[in-house]
Amino acid sequence: MYRTHTCGELRIEHVQQAVTLAGWVQTIRKFGSITFVDLRDRYGITQLLFGEELNKQLDENPLGREFVLQVKGTVSERSNKNKNIATGDIEILVNEFSILNKSEVPPFTITDETDGGDDLRMKYRYLDLRRNAVKKNLELRYAVSRSTRNYLHENNFMDIETPFLIKSTPEGARDFVVPSRMNPGQFYALPQSPQTFKQLLMVSGYDRYYQIVKCFRDEDLRADRQPEFTQIDCEMSFVEQNDILNMFEGLVKRIFKDVKNIDYTEKVERMTWEDAMWHYGNDKPDIRFGMQLLNLKKPSSVYINKKDQPELINGADFKVFDEAETVLAIAVPGCSEYSRKQTDEITEWVKRPQIGMKGLVFIKCNTDGTYKSSVDKFYSEEKLKAIANAANAKAGDLILMLAGTEERTRKAISELRLEMGKRLGFRKENEFKLLWVLDFPLFEFALEDQDGGGAGRWVARHHPFTSPKPDHINIMINNNPKVEDLDKYLEHPYANIKANAYDLVLNGNEIGGGSIRIYQKELQQKMFEALGMDEHEQQHKFGFLLGAFEYGAPPHGGLAFGFDRLCAILGGSESIRDFIAFPKNNSGRDVMLDAPATIDQKQFNELQIQLDLK
Amino acid sequence: MYRTHTCGELRIEHVQQAVTLAGWVQTIRKFGSITFVDLRDRYGITQLLFGEELNKQLDENPLGREFVLQVKGTVSERSNKNKNIATGDIEILVNEFSILNKSEVPPFTITDETDGGDDLRMKYRYLDLRRNAVKKNLELRYAVSRSTRNYLHENNFMDIETPFLIKSTPEGARDFVVPSRMNPGQFYALPQSPQTFKQLLMVSGYDRYYQIVKCFRDEDLRADRQPEFTQIDCEMSFVEQNDILNMFEGLVKRIFKDVKNIDYTEKVERMTWEDAMWHYGNDKPDIRFGMQLLNLKKPSSVYINKKDQPELINGADFKVFDEAETVLAIAVPGCSEYSRKQTDEITEWVKRPQIGMKGLVFIKCNTDGTYKSSVDKFYSEEKLKAIANAANAKAGDLILMLAGTEERTRKAISELRLEMGKRLGFRKENEFKLLWVLDFPLFEFALEDQDGGGAGRWVARHHPFTSPKPDHINIMINNNPKVEDLDKYLEHPYANIKANAYDLVLNGNEIGGGSIRIYQKELQQKMFEALGMDEHEQQHKFGFLLGAFEYGAPPHGGLAFGFDRLCAILGGSESIRDFIAFPKNNSGRDVMLDAPATIDQKQFNELQIQLDLK
Repeated sequence: MYRTHTCGELRIEHVQQAVTLAGWVQTIRKFGSITFVDLRDRYGITQLLFGEELNKQLDENPLGREFVLQVKGTVSERSNKNKNIATGDIEILVNEFSILNKSEVPPFTITDETDGGDDLRMKYRYLDLRRNAVKKNLELRYAVSRSTRNYLHENNFMDIETPFLIKSTPEGARDFVVPSRMNPGQFYALPQSPQTFKQLLMVSGYDRYYQIVKCFRDEDLRADRQPEFTQIDCEMSFVEQNDILNMFEGLVKRIFKDVKNIDYTEKVERMTWEDAMWHYGNDKPDIRFGMQLLNLKKPSSVYINKKDQPELINGADFKVFDEAETVLAIAVPGCSEYSRKQTDEITEWVKRPQIGMKGLVFIKCNTDGTYKSSVDKFYSEEKLKAIANAANAKAGDLILMLAGTEERTRKAISELRLEMGKRLGFRKENEFKLLWVLDFPLFEFALEDQDGGGAGRWVARHHPFTSPKPDHINIMINNNPKVEDLDKYLEHPYANIKANAYDLVLNGNEIGGGSIRIYQKELQQKMFEALGMDEHEQQHKFGFLLGAFEYGAPPHGGLAFGFDRLCAILGGSESIRDFIAFPKNNSGRDVMLDAPATIDQKQFNELQIQLDLK
Repeated sequence: MYRTHTCGELRIEHVQQAVTLAGWVQTIRKFGSITFVDLRDRYGITQLLFGEELNKQLDENPLGREFVLQVKGTVSERSNKNKNIATGDIEILVNEFSILNKSEVPPFTITDETDGGDDLRMKYRYLDLRRNAVKKNLELRYAVSRSTRNYLHENNFMDIETPFLIKSTPEGARDFVVPSRMNPGQFYALPQSPQTFKQLLMVSGYDRYYQIVKCFRDEDLRADRQPEFTQIDCEMSFVEQNDILNMFEGLVKRIFKDVKNIDYTEKVERMTWEDAMWHYGNDKPDIRFGMQLLNLKKPSSVYINKKDQPELINGADFKVFDEAETVLAIAVPGCSEYSRKQTDEITEWVKRPQIGMKGLVFIKCNTDGTYKSSVDKFYSEEKLKAIANAANAKAGDLILMLAGTEERTRKAISELRLEMGKRLGFRKENEFKLLWVLDFPLFEFALEDQDGGGAGRWVARHHPFTSPKPDHINIMINNNPKVEDLDKYLEHPYANIKANAYDLVLNGNEIGGGSIRIYQKELQQKMFEALGMDEHEQQHKFGFLLGAFEYGAPPHGGLAFGFDRLCAILGGSESIRDFIAFPKNNSGRDVMLDAPATIDQKQFNELQIQLDLK
């Protein structure tokens, strides 16, 4: 060992002990004939004092930032104690030192607030990883994985490794593929998730499986997506939806306790997808605050179980509302006294291309009980009051209203709600609120071609292995999936089949999702058929799974957490990249390695492939 | 939940309880108007009793092997107790049952001794995994990983994930590569190990890293190799060799305790590579038994620190020995009375192509003190006695001698020693003996081309990041690696440089290996140069590592365990495939998935590659 103690370990009770430390030079402060050095390692920082004698040696062998240094010395009480660090009561009187390795001047400072830009820090990621801010993230990540493993172990889950070199069955996202040298002309695929393997493990009787596992998706990278990412992947047999929800909200509560020391004792709310969309405009609502949507108007064929209130706006001859497919409102607390400048700014905000609205209507619910709106010439104060009441607005609130096509408007009001929530401080960093969203539609309808499956067909919203809700199974079996009139696809019975699926949402972020799976061969075949797969394709891609379902597949279900995102949210960050040791940039490149890169002709020859650049 | 209890849980104290079980039908035994069914799940087997009433329902809904069954009933004491299973005191009087899923007749029996051949079991791996024999292996694997994580966590190691999509830097084994769609013409590689990443993490200050991680090698698969395999990968900073040996023999002892309940309290032996080769003919000797080699003759340039004893065989005019490069002997205990048939059989054994010897010489050390050999006409009894003494043979032993070229003969006698040890019962299944083998040569010399690096050059025996022993660093730095006379490469100073490397051997199997790494930029460059890499190639392949070494790299070292093999040995098996949930066959195929497979033209187009089949 190059050290007897770490740089985070020594305390006042070690005074007089002879110790050896090793670490990196954080700072050097010379005062006349003595020098103070802060020595850093993973565990902390310890102050070193080089007295007159050693100072001369230092002059001959000058230290620099990030030099690797070993010192022998005696622990001594500091006169100037530093209460900010754990070792602040002591310093080391150095007797002997040895420079284990030198360092060039780093391209950016190794400090919490660094002067290095993103690109530079990614290129020198090994230096960026030295910064305390990044180290804390990786430590949190490890703590989350440790907590997860402990909880699942205690609940009889088994970690079982599934293969990485599998078969390409592109469904939804694109596979990364790997040419096989031993089987020329053939390719492995890297798994997008271990989905079918964990289902096979259920068929094999391993009734509680988990894995913290890398997955791969060859997608165009939106901000904060990585081509390789990590899942906490779980599956259980002989369970119903409720069993899974209980088990995995338990997991997240355990993580809160272990990692953040938060006792999350409240019941985790559960909400249907339809309620989430209706009340929040979003399938992953942030329920740390209210501001629920008032649904004034909806198209007849969407949210069939929900009742809109068009009578509140109809008959006023206000064309914007009259001609809109959807009109939605939220009541923003305490903002009735917003100035013209402020309401204009919000209007501009909703008109940005990312939101895409044409304008904004507002109603001020004044504290004196009067109402004032941007559409006063269409709506009487009485009508405004009725709308305000329906929106649960109180005196002092500001009602914001959007109108337009259903999907865009709902999305826009959801974004607006989140934005106003943020501005008003309702999205508190240290408040965590979990929510299960249930009963997603099983299918979406692809009016245009997706994934080469052809146009005008059903697409699995979750994945093709998701079971319908128990009382919707017969709708699926007893109806022909074919949609005759594409314009009326919403009227097809399949449009209203709900999936036995669930997402776990934390503060408006989806952190996990899963479903009860299909375990009956016939139902699985019907699903494949609905997705436009003929029998040959079913056999080619999923023959092994259909085969497995012939030999006693148990009822089962599971879910997967996005591990990178879960860590980022727990760490209070928006960016998963900060929680990955060696992330890739938005073009999928590792700029430190300079990968991907060209390969040798010999490798092409062995793999029997060649480039075909357009 | 489809059950209140598992099939391994109910005991005599549960009698009278109403329970619900779910599982697979293992056996059905009909006795007149009642039927016994053994219901199986991951946890055990419970006997079900269908009385007269329910038997009628069973007749209408007949069960079959591997049907998935749910039953409600009452726990009842058995009259005929079965002491062989944990639930053998009770049975369930079934009130109600439900067939959750049917099963075709499985293609082989789901029993410890199955009638299914290898190929069939691999095709239906999901059924093979139901067999208790396979389940036990996966449970052991999980227990080993759990024990490993706990030990390393307690010792301050951090699990840090390293990337899977990296850069191809073929050194030794071939990389699997992954075409990048977003960077046309460029490829990622899958990691053969996280070697450089864990070293970067040391540079970053994460002084104790571990990962249980998949690695990939595109090699022609010898028996019991897999293209994807799992490593326990570890690295530490500020350590010397001894620190690493102590830490990781501690890990294996902990695994013995946790997984096998074995207290491995003895000191783990340590042996130099030269001693291992000299005394056992092998760099991973099984030291559960003796039978060490007598080195009668060696070529002058190998094992320079060792003294052979040619005087014992010279001058007898026995051409086989006189002309051989190497003559080696072992004394096999208690076999002096072997018949002619038995010695002939051993002679045939060493002449098999896998061993490749031309013949065998034996000396019988008779219990009456006389000696008898197959070379009596060349060696007097006195000379035989001298050889026997040198071989530490006792009365009753049988000395076996092989002669030939150094490498082949040493390998052959090592194989013969293991074979005789096995036959004589010296290799006990439940005895475990660990051994560190140290001080491997740093380099091997490639007389012929390897990996396209050219002929007549040094090759890293371990990998290019291994440091020489501290007192050999200067030999490396101060000498030109170039070998002028290829025939005399053994006389080049590099031939005797020993690596600061270590292998951990368990019962004659290498279970782990590692080294103290180079952390000085200049030494690393010298290493790359010795391996025939010019500066451009060094920068292209390992620029990031050389760069990292400029910014304060600490002394560090580590090792990796072959996780699959470790599990196999602990499980008493020769085959790693039995310890992998979804293994590939010897052609790298997953016969269950039928992978690798062809991919769509659309995928070729997107990746901008095409086939180039020879």
